[in-house]
Amino acid sequence: MLPKIVVSLALLLSVSPAFALWPAPRQITQGSAALKLSHGFKINLSGVKNPPKDLTDAVSRTLSYISNDKLQALVVDRGASSTGAVSRAKSLPSLTVSLTSTGKGLVKSISEEAVAPIESRAEGYTLIIPADGSAATLKANSTLGLFRGLTTFSQLWYELNNDAYTLQAPFTIVDSPAYPYRGFMLDTARNFFPIADIKRTLDAMSWVKINTLHWHVVDSQSFPLIVPGFTELSAKAAYNAQSVYTPAQVKDLVAYAAARGIDIIAEIDTPGHTSAIAKAHPEHIACPEASPWAQFANEPPAGQLRVANAETTNFTSALLTSAASLFKSAYFGTGGDEINTNCYASDEETQTELSAQGKTLDQALDTFTQATHSALKAVGKTAVVWEEMVLDHPVTLANDTVIMVWISADNVAAVVQKGFRVVHAANDYFYLDCGHGGWVGQNVLGNSWCDPFKTWQKSYSFDPLANLTPDQHKFILGGQHLLWTEQSNPANLDSIVWPRAASSAEVFWTGPGGNVGTALPRLHDIAYRFRQRGVNAIALQPEWCALRPGACDLNA
Amino acid sequence: MLPKIVVSLALLLSVSPAFALWPAPRQITQGSAALKLSHGFKINLSGVKNPPKDLTDAVSRTLSYISNDKLQALVVDRGASSTGAVSRAKSLPSLTVSLTSTGKGLVKSISEEAVAPIESRAEGYTLIIPADGSAATLKANSTLGLFRGLTTFSQLWYELNNDAYTLQAPFTIVDSPAYPYRGFMLDTARNFFPIADIKRTLDAMSWVKINTLHWHVVDSQSFPLIVPGFTELSAKAAYNAQSVYTPAQVKDLVAYAAARGIDIIAEIDTPGHTSAIAKAHPEHIACPEASPWAQFANEPPAGQLRVANAETTNFTSALLTSAASLFKSAYFGTGGDEINTNCYASDEETQTELSAQGKTLDQALDTFTQATHSALKAVGKTAVVWEEMVLDHPVTLANDTVIMVWISADNVAAVVQKGFRVVHAANDYFYLDCGHGGWVGQNVLGNSWCDPFKTWQKSYSFDPLANLTPDQHKFILGGQHLLWTEQSNPANLDSIVWPRAASSAEVFWTGPGGNVGTALPRLHDIAYRFRQRGVNAIALQPEWCALRPGACDLNA
Repeated sequence: MLPKIVVSLALLLSVSPAFALWPAPRQITQGSAALKLSHGFKINLSGVKNPPKDLTDAVSRTLSYISNDKLQALVVDRGASSTGAVSRAKSLPSLTVSLTSTGKGLVKSISEEAVAPIESRAEGYTLIIPADGSAATLKANSTLGLFRGLTTFSQLWYELNNDAYTLQAPFTIVDSPAYPYRGFMLDTARNFFPIADIKRTLDAMSWVKINTLHWHVVDSQSFPLIVPGFTELSAKAAYNAQSVYTPAQVKDLVAYAAARGIDIIAEIDTPGHTSAIAKAHPEHIACPEASPWAQFANEPPAGQLRVANAETTNFTSALLTSAASLFKSAYFGTGGDEINTNCYASDEETQTELSAQGKTLDQALDTFTQATHSALKAVGKTAVVWEEMVLDHPVTLANDTVIMVWISADNVAAVVQKGFRVVHAANDYFYLDCGHGGWVGQNVLGNSWCDPFKTWQKSYSFDPLANLTPDQHKFILGGQHLLWTEQSNPANLDSIVWPRAASSAEVFWTGPGGNVGTALPRLHDIAYRFRQRGVNAIALQPEWCALRPGACDLNA
Repeated sequence: MLPKIVVSLALLLSVSPAFALWPAPRQITQGSAALKLSHGFKINLSGVKNPPKDLTDAVSRTLSYISNDKLQALVVDRGASSTGAVSRAKSLPSLTVSLTSTGKGLVKSISEEAVAPIESRAEGYTLIIPADGSAATLKANSTLGLFRGLTTFSQLWYELNNDAYTLQAPFTIVDSPAYPYRGFMLDTARNFFPIADIKRTLDAMSWVKINTLHWHVVDSQSFPLIVPGFTELSAKAAYNAQSVYTPAQVKDLVAYAAARGIDIIAEIDTPGHTSAIAKAHPEHIACPEASPWAQFANEPPAGQLRVANAETTNFTSALLTSAASLFKSAYFGTGGDEINTNCYASDEETQTELSAQGKTLDQALDTFTQATHSALKAVGKTAVVWEEMVLDHPVTLANDTVIMVWISADNVAAVVQKGFRVVHAANDYFYLDCGHGGWVGQNVLGNSWCDPFKTWQKSYSFDPLANLTPDQHKFILGGQHLLWTEQSNPANLDSIVWPRAASSAEVFWTGPGGNVGTALPRLHDIAYRFRQRGVNAIALQPEWCALRPGACDLNA
């Protein structure tokens, strides 16, 4: 028996720059034969008993992408010199899709798998595409895995003379993610984003196998989420009556995301970043719109929930649980970043309550946090918080709390040291807003606080396990790019996110250690494909370079 | 007789943040009365004999903007509290448009005025809008001035309950530009931009009274311009058969621009930045695609016209004059930047020719430049060159040559010292591409060469007359923002340009010295208006700030 030839990722990427998958599969063998899709090409779901509707829909979308992408190969002649090879190529008649474990129970849908707890997601798949004209096969243990495989399949084909073809058949791809959490965070509070923009972003995320939308839905500036029982918040603090997310829209969005293998973890940041709540409930907010804002908050307007007040605590618990009920995720973000002590120091009511209770601010914060987190746990939600809740405040957190580290990647080790699971979200690698100048007014030559601009190369070279011992590796769930929207709106959503955010998608799917030089041609490829699919990914280089892998390298 | 009250710009901007014109008129008085447009509002051209079609078209567009902008005032209640005032307001029945100098000749069209030599453009106008319900009047010495006035008029109105209204009537605006050249440069060679994107950009430019598109149409990476008699260049060196500008498209684009008061100054950069020409004419190019590129050019691919070769010189003259014939402008750009001496040192043919002629490279460059510029002059075109042709090479240039200073604003004084007219185009203020990281491959943590990002505040605080004596001021024609497109394509055209490029539009129309704090609300306003008109200007701040002028200032 001949040994199976497995090409290592590094070798593959160095010898085969036209290789176009993003993120790169973790294990792949490929050949050098031309293969085209039969004009009657079919995706056959006979290997899935009673296939769920989101799987049949995913199959339809896959066929639609293959028909409509019409992406020419990124080579100088755009593939023209392959005309002969493609016309002589064998035709692939079909892709047979099947589940490997056909237990007795009903097949779970992609949507059900997508919103399962992080540790139980099965996203792996095996995709085999022969070069001899026999059917291709896609197998996985879950419909979610099948969906990931379909995503890979759809990226393999270029267009030439109305044929969808590859020059690298046969393929054997055995793939699964390095990390279970691969996210993208969108802030819809600084500026509003219509549902259509979010859906387009979800599609784009799914194309690079990102599986979590961390939705920073409200903040001090506006409260666009209509929360059942708390509709006064959006009524008073949305930017306008149209700039809201209704429960029906959220339900639809959650379903849309889940059908694309994406869990939506919503966040209502507490106790800071809540100035907007004062518009409807001034009784719950300390230092609302206090001036000068810089003494009371990191950005205007100031305002924080009165953590020492029992009614405010109850209000917050009820608000969070109601909001959480709109989502299917097992997680809900409660924030905890940038708590401003001066705001509370200036708030007579908070000071009175702390005195009466004989508590410090951090003790009150602990009570508040335990109450709100318990309320969430009671409705089946695990809390997600920012790093300050571990590193800056002695707050009691459940062991399963998920911690997002944003201030510096260097802080990850300290969080892990305390036994918490971490999502990488460090501004020094993953903040898409950095480097566009200060947005605060009357700040003539102000830089962005997190200068410089974070290039795709910077995030691509991130090491998720830096400074950790091997036994701590299990605490790293994954990571994400983040878009805070002080200087973003729908006008630059696509262009500020794509293709940069694809770089972390690969770091956390394929694993770190990729080479930016060999990644670049593939990143061009996915960016061109994004544009064919209506997502405005920007150019990374002149097209002259995109068509000549390596020719624009530093020493070329 | 009462003295006329003229509010200075600085005072106006400080007391009236809702004032929404961009660029600010140079002289304005305004009141505090509500005024709305009659639902039968008309623009009356009876004061213009035989109005040219581009003026009647501009009137139609003005009415269309007024109807369709539907921009709500940028205040917290979006104008709702003005409902009573607006419902009680007088209605403006019409705007009467007339030319003040009705000479015996035919009225010149906007388009004819727009492409006239820089020194002869009349862009001033007087716009008087009474608050008492009598007709408004717009007067100017030229149709181009009338067009600028219509542009101003269209920005005065907010929408409330289907009324277009202002709260600041009456208005008396006496306006004209501080500088005759207010431009925007677009590079369509690194990445291609379809005509529709350029047209949208021209519209946006006209809204802020930018009067010149400096079209860097071809470069080393691609040659999209179909030049009569030289069609082999685009046939061989356009990115593809669709990524070209046909003569018919160029003619249409020139007309589209001119009708909007915009001259298109095209540029074919010579002798550097011409690698693309080698695809069809290798005989004319030294060091084509030489490697390592960094030794032969500032960016790949290398390649320069053989300046010592008489046939290449003739070829270039013929190419430039043919290309220039596609445009109506009195100007044509011949480049002259970043000439790489090592490229010529490595080119045996150039070395042989220099020896045979007994010339240095700079002497050959002088001969080449005089020949190509004379050829352009013979077809009525004045040359526009980059600063190196004055500061780095002892080349003989006609006195009327226009010099673009890009390497540093500090170099302007040296160019003016030599008696040349200057267009400000310094990368340290006006390059829109800076700050997005290095685009060269295998450059892991590379910054953009012109870091940091140039904020609108930076360009807005530019002083066009810095380091110049009063008698040198006349040499400053104006200035422009520039978009080099290594990292741009249609996906981020709007978002990287707008509203930043509006900042130089105001510096060179209204004059320098504006305050970024008082400018910000107006810049928000024009950005919101751009979006209403389909140009994707980005957010400068959270909407919370945009609706509360000053509230997000540094010390607010």
